[in-house]
Amino acid sequence: MTVTPDRLTPMANAIRVLSMDAVQAANSGHPGMPMGMADVATVLYSQFLKFDPAAPKWPDRDRFVLSAGHGSMLIYALLHLTGYEAPTMDDIRNFRQLHSPCAGHPENTELPGVECTTGPLGQGLAMAVGMAMAERHLNAVHGDDLVNHRTWVIAGDGCLMEGVNHEAVGLAGTLKLGQLNVLWDDNAITIDGDTALSTCEDIPARYAASGWHVTRCDGHDFADIARALAEAAADPRPSLVACKTVIGQGAPNKAGSHSVHGSPLGADEVAAARAALGWTAAPFEVPADILADWRSLGAKGAAERAAWEARLAASPNRAAFEAGQQGLKGKAVPALKDYIDGLISSPQKVATRKASEMALGPLTEQLPALIGGSADLTGSNLTKTKATATFSADDYTGRHVHYGIREFGMAAAMNGMALHGGLVPYGGTFLVFADYCRNAIRMSAIQHAQVVYVLTHDSIGLGEDGPTHQPIEHVMSLRAIPNLLVFRPADVVETAECWALALEAEGTPSALALSRQNLPQLREQGGMLSAKGGYRLKAAEAARQVVLVATGSEVEIALASAKALEAEGIGADVVSMPCTELFDAQDAAYRADLLPAGVLKVSIEAGVTLGWQKYVGDGLTIGIDRFGSSAPADQLYDYFGLTADKIVPQIKARLGR
Amino acid sequence: MTVTPDRLTPMANAIRVLSMDAVQAANSGHPGMPMGMADVATVLYSQFLKFDPAAPKWPDRDRFVLSAGHGSMLIYALLHLTGYEAPTMDDIRNFRQLHSPCAGHPENTELPGVECTTGPLGQGLAMAVGMAMAERHLNAVHGDDLVNHRTWVIAGDGCLMEGVNHEAVGLAGTLKLGQLNVLWDDNAITIDGDTALSTCEDIPARYAASGWHVTRCDGHDFADIARALAEAAADPRPSLVACKTVIGQGAPNKAGSHSVHGSPLGADEVAAARAALGWTAAPFEVPADILADWRSLGAKGAAERAAWEARLAASPNRAAFEAGQQGLKGKAVPALKDYIDGLISSPQKVATRKASEMALGPLTEQLPALIGGSADLTGSNLTKTKATATFSADDYTGRHVHYGIREFGMAAAMNGMALHGGLVPYGGTFLVFADYCRNAIRMSAIQHAQVVYVLTHDSIGLGEDGPTHQPIEHVMSLRAIPNLLVFRPADVVETAECWALALEAEGTPSALALSRQNLPQLREQGGMLSAKGGYRLKAAEAARQVVLVATGSEVEIALASAKALEAEGIGADVVSMPCTELFDAQDAAYRADLLPAGVLKVSIEAGVTLGWQKYVGDGLTIGIDRFGSSAPADQLYDYFGLTADKIVPQIKARLGR
Repeated sequence: MTVTPDRLTPMANAIRVLSMDAVQAANSGHPGMPMGMADVATVLYSQFLKFDPAAPKWPDRDRFVLSAGHGSMLIYALLHLTGYEAPTMDDIRNFRQLHSPCAGHPENTELPGVECTTGPLGQGLAMAVGMAMAERHLNAVHGDDLVNHRTWVIAGDGCLMEGVNHEAVGLAGTLKLGQLNVLWDDNAITIDGDTALSTCEDIPARYAASGWHVTRCDGHDFADIARALAEAAADPRPSLVACKTVIGQGAPNKAGSHSVHGSPLGADEVAAARAALGWTAAPFEVPADILADWRSLGAKGAAERAAWEARLAASPNRAAFEAGQQGLKGKAVPALKDYIDGLISSPQKVATRKASEMALGPLTEQLPALIGGSADLTGSNLTKTKATATFSADDYTGRHVHYGIREFGMAAAMNGMALHGGLVPYGGTFLVFADYCRNAIRMSAIQHAQVVYVLTHDSIGLGEDGPTHQPIEHVMSLRAIPNLLVFRPADVVETAECWALALEAEGTPSALALSRQNLPQLREQGGMLSAKGGYRLKAAEAARQVVLVATGSEVEIALASAKALEAEGIGADVVSMPCTELFDAQDAAYRADLLPAGVLKVSIEAGVTLGWQKYVGDGLTIGIDRFGSSAPADQLYDYFGLTADKIVPQIKARLGR
Repeated sequence: MTVTPDRLTPMANAIRVLSMDAVQAANSGHPGMPMGMADVATVLYSQFLKFDPAAPKWPDRDRFVLSAGHGSMLIYALLHLTGYEAPTMDDIRNFRQLHSPCAGHPENTELPGVECTTGPLGQGLAMAVGMAMAERHLNAVHGDDLVNHRTWVIAGDGCLMEGVNHEAVGLAGTLKLGQLNVLWDDNAITIDGDTALSTCEDIPARYAASGWHVTRCDGHDFADIARALAEAAADPRPSLVACKTVIGQGAPNKAGSHSVHGSPLGADEVAAARAALGWTAAPFEVPADILADWRSLGAKGAAERAAWEARLAASPNRAAFEAGQQGLKGKAVPALKDYIDGLISSPQKVATRKASEMALGPLTEQLPALIGGSADLTGSNLTKTKATATFSADDYTGRHVHYGIREFGMAAAMNGMALHGGLVPYGGTFLVFADYCRNAIRMSAIQHAQVVYVLTHDSIGLGEDGPTHQPIEHVMSLRAIPNLLVFRPADVVETAECWALALEAEGTPSALALSRQNLPQLREQGGMLSAKGGYRLKAAEAARQVVLVATGSEVEIALASAKALEAEGIGADVVSMPCTELFDAQDAAYRADLLPAGVLKVSIEAGVTLGWQKYVGDGLTIGIDRFGSSAPADQLYDYFGLTADKIVPQIKARLGR
């Protein structure tokens, strides 16, 4: 360590004072956690965390995740004090104000040094599991010289009570992620009051039952904290360190109470805390000697980073390592070219989930940064390829993860892997269970994390499993999430194109909605037509009176409907629309050419019609606005009116024919 | 017991054979679980479960929940064999076919005796927790004579691995739900293969860490099963019984393997199983002696039910008990009349979350069937009223639950309470965390479970907590779920009306999206105008050129915009639309009167615009199609263009003014 023990108290108090002052100035925020965990954080940053404020993206840095994201002032204080370029003191002064990078909850898109966006409880820890998985995989591939770092988490009781925590803990224990250490802010307080109001859980016993190492410390005793963190770092299992703390420590009257959790202390208590801590500096001023101690910590990291740079320069793995860090942009389209050419010459009728597996063949073979998995539906989602062996505690070089029946945990872990860098994760579950991980999908989008969700068994086409398993509202609901590409390909060619587009979309997650049932190949040419989101698959032969817009398994039905209409002299375009978000991004002329005014437009999608009015105006929206049913798929398509026989009369009626 | 031990084997084999035959006939389904758990289920039904096939809705029956819903043939076989009116053998023969009540996964809306719809893993067990809570509450209120029954669950490894299980287990342990007994099908197999592929958890230790009683049995030894179930029934804690079973027991070549989990056995293996079991009857025939043994079990229940009916007839609590069973239809509107009249005479400017608390005052006072709660946000969601004391292990008479930081567990438990009968549950979290419990909300809708979701802190109006906490896409995404009423009231009066409508909607769940910030009272009259979903709040004064349609906090902005337009001679209606689903249910004339053709229609809602085209056609959709930001609410409204100053010019531009 670079500072002496007697200096730790004023260093920790700097965190406390900055936190309470910023929350007070904003008149909004959570002072209790940063004040309670200030001592633990000071020990972590001064003696354990490997970081270099001058190079926040250094690939071999330790990752620090503030899972209890409401305590955001803790990380803002730490980043500023240790000398990161941002946040500045002005940024902190503007905590929770418009355009300040010091948002209410920490956002990775605002500040280097914030490894992931946290606030939705439980997900920070679950993302940290993904970071630790990424670290072990890249370590196994590139060796200790290039990849050997830890993931540290600060989590509160809220994080530990959420269901996703159970999934994350189970995954980490099974995968023996020894480089993962969770510092639990064990203050026995939640928003509602004492934790005993809602839980009687023996948390250490639960973690131990999942293969974790557990230890405890007095979270306000620097030596004891250091002892526990050293123990955690040394143990080959993931570690939980129960840090017994007092919430709001330093606030003489409010410490230890839930009143300090999510509200400013108030001017009187702020003054009393200043007196109790012996802190005489003005708000947003840190005494020079204390700031100097904090800044000195960066020096150690700079030396470590320089040594790492030297090792990288000399490493035989340098090119491979750097290629992995660069992401997939420009790589996916060429990787699929031969495969798509082959489909054009030899068409295939397969389910789009199978088409996904086929596309993943060349992709996983050529792109080692791809790491897949499934939430216990490997044989259904078809996510595992020849090139991807199983990733396990026995072999971290594998690139396919058995996530178990843990959809939310899987999605959060994938976010962590993507944000760690060096990998682009994809993972499968049934589309209907996108509900189970929906907030993690949203968090992919918020965080600009490139994750590909392989969501198979879409709509009623899955058949007999019935309404609980038939996603009716899911595709449209996913489209409502900003910064998420939702693909619903119609055939084997579109599936390959959508995979390529998903992998080219750096900083944007994607969801692929894929069929269980076989679909004929509709495309007779290549050309990455899906890149514009929607395109004219078939032009009207007779004078155009109708434009049919369909996605996925219903494009085939649109073509059959168009054929029937043409037979009666009614010209009909068919537009395939695998991705509405990409279509929306095209210029107005392109969109108007495909969906012209003054022509009847008809959407066909085996899901809710809400939303399709955006594309067909007052035209017809053919879909399913109720829950599905249990029966063979072809019977369901007939029952729900999704056949040309049932659609064509509605179109003719609207045309007055 | 009414059958002798030596008869149990053929009785259990009847389940096995029916299950494998039905799956084989459907060429789809899951034979492994029903065959593996047939022995345990036979002991449960013959010696422990309190049920009367002639009265499937008998309020004091034990509840049986097949949490591992994919093994649906188990419950279909049990219901048929014990003599429920349905399913018939023809229904079973048509397993997984259109219009058969024997759907792929059991559906409570199809068969009395199926207590809840299961299939989405983990939720059956979590609903059972809610059933057990309802039982303890009604027991505390009405006494042992009227309410004293157990809740039994069969759950698989999948149920136990899901995150929601952790939440359910924690809740049940804290609440000491001793009448809840979970029979875990401990077969060490998941879809992907051996459970060791994805978990190393010591499950009994984990349950014990949450205050559960844990015992084990050989799931193929009748005496040992009975011993373990008796132990579970006797213990005052909730119990986990680890039933060591072989998946697909009875299939000589496939038992014990994941190949038997989700696929038909195949004709050869079916024949081999018949031979191994010594079963000579034809498919879908049960030998008369075995059927007679099964049918004899009902007699015991009939006697118990008769005794209960007699106790009810003589009970001083009869009227109160029966009133609770009848639900709230016709009760909520009168309960709120005086309160709403008071608002009309003394308008109030409050947040709609506060308005919700105010409406809950008279509602909880007058309607004892209401039971509330919050996922650790009691003081933010404002769900607790004077009339509702805390529901806890020490006092089950309370009517407000501290669910802890367990949104999914809360929602599933509420489904269980609603389905148990006698209670209408409501529970709060932040609207953004509707994501965490989204599939349970969907399950409320599928199951016709009347649950009210109190979702506060809607949109950017919550301010500083920033994008992770600002629901942008959530209201529209909830609207996409069939059979769910989504309310977004504009003021204190509409909030009361929406509460009344939610409580009147028997068989339909509701979601209330409520503001953190204060909103002025816009309504000057009563009349339950929200009942039509949308209504004209203000009629144009000048010649009408625009109709502004808004919801919630944006109705105030629509009124301000209309005022500015009228000042320039542009007549503008304002339509308040608290519930699009109820508006959609009105006749065409009403809808066309409110949203007439040929007039510019403009939607204003602080959320995604996708979907509003349904109501405004090619008019303007004012909203937010990106993630929010951290800042005070009024600054955000300006930043995102949701002010009259920024909206009016867009309208004028469209009008060519």
